[in-house]
Amino acid sequence: MPSSTLNPLLEGKPPEPLLVVISGPSGVGKDSVLTRMRELAFPFHFVVTATSRPIRPGETDGYDYHFVSTERFEQMVREEELLEWAVVYGQYKGIPKFEVRQAMASGRDVVLRINVDGAATLKRMAPEAVFIFLAPASPEELRRRLALRRTETPAEIDRRLAVAAHEMEQVVHFDYVVLNREDRLDEAVGEIRAIITAEKQRVFPRQVRL
Amino acid sequence: MPSSTLNPLLEGKPPEPLLVVISGPSGVGKDSVLTRMRELAFPFHFVVTATSRPIRPGETDGYDYHFVSTERFEQMVREEELLEWAVVYGQYKGIPKFEVRQAMASGRDVVLRINVDGAATLKRMAPEAVFIFLAPASPEELRRRLALRRTETPAEIDRRLAVAAHEMEQVVHFDYVVLNREDRLDEAVGEIRAIITAEKQRVFPRQVRL
Repeated sequence: MPSSTLNPLLEGKPPEPLLVVISGPSGVGKDSVLTRMRELAFPFHFVVTATSRPIRPGETDGYDYHFVSTERFEQMVREEELLEWAVVYGQYKGIPKFEVRQAMASGRDVVLRINVDGAATLKRMAPEAVFIFLAPASPEELRRRLALRRTETPAEIDRRLAVAAHEMEQVVHFDYVVLNREDRLDEAVGEIRAIITAEKQRVFPRQVRL
Repeated sequence: MPSSTLNPLLEGKPPEPLLVVISGPSGVGKDSVLTRMRELAFPFHFVVTATSRPIRPGETDGYDYHFVSTERFEQMVREEELLEWAVVYGQYKGIPKFEVRQAMASGRDVVLRINVDGAATLKRMAPEAVFIFLAPASPEELRRRLALRRTETPAEIDRRLAVAAHEMEQVVHFDYVVLNREDRLDEAVGEIRAIITAEKQRVFPRQVRL
């Protein structure tokens, strides 16, 4: 929520860091968008999610995800080391508290990638975050994208598409929608960049308190 | 105000046109910013203000302003041809209704340049417009800028600075603040572009009804 404190820019000071939540249906391309943002050296801290799912070819531990064992993940849950966690398609995913707090304290913007259910939890915990919903240009494009990934079986793809239809309805709880059109990744990334720039210009900026 | 209608982007349609109001204290550089936006061929319709003040060297009638006689301006007021008008430093300035309606009907975003008092009037008439406040980096910079312009006498500059101090307080009625720092015009223009891009991504877009 906007606060009643004027933008520090008006006193020649840097704006407060933002907490940016990027979500959207499974398979919409959240990972591709975040990877591209990192390639372009956006000056943000990307919070690396912890997961118990197996590492995929081309992924790097500690960069794409913190890949941990199921046992270690359950320990993190017990010891309340996670800001938010969920079971996603039979695997744990969660956001280490340490990561987020360290990043915010450093004064940099924080970008989180999270599934739609997780975003709903975060909205309750941090309503003043910037919620961006990444949407496919069409359901057909989402199917093609999932098929291309080749990590899901056809039955899994069907299940994900059914879930995606429900997830799309959750867009109403978000601030912004960005379409991730096939072959137009940089357009989506540019729109996310614009949203972040614009949010820093608000006369009454959002103030994140986690 | 955001409406309850979802962004047409979600149905593969173009977003509704925006009405963007760029205001700020006298001398902050509103004209420079708009001229630069036009040089960069931003895809917006710029509403040309009508004024009774004399044309300055380098200005073009119908581009910088519609320069009209005092008699003609008073006729426009009488015949309600103006969306908003005011006496600014002894000269009439106003926004021809025809200009705005024609542009909105064409489906293009509309950008208006207006002084702070005029923006307050527009906010009552079109609260769903995007209100951007252009601010100087400091009062000193504003004084330098006014002195450089060489169209005002020292007494006029002092009067404008006194007014500017009051105008700065009106920032609280705006959505966004953009600093127009000396020698960093393109940064201000880029921030305005980002704001317009971001506004088009709102899940519930503003819907302008004039």
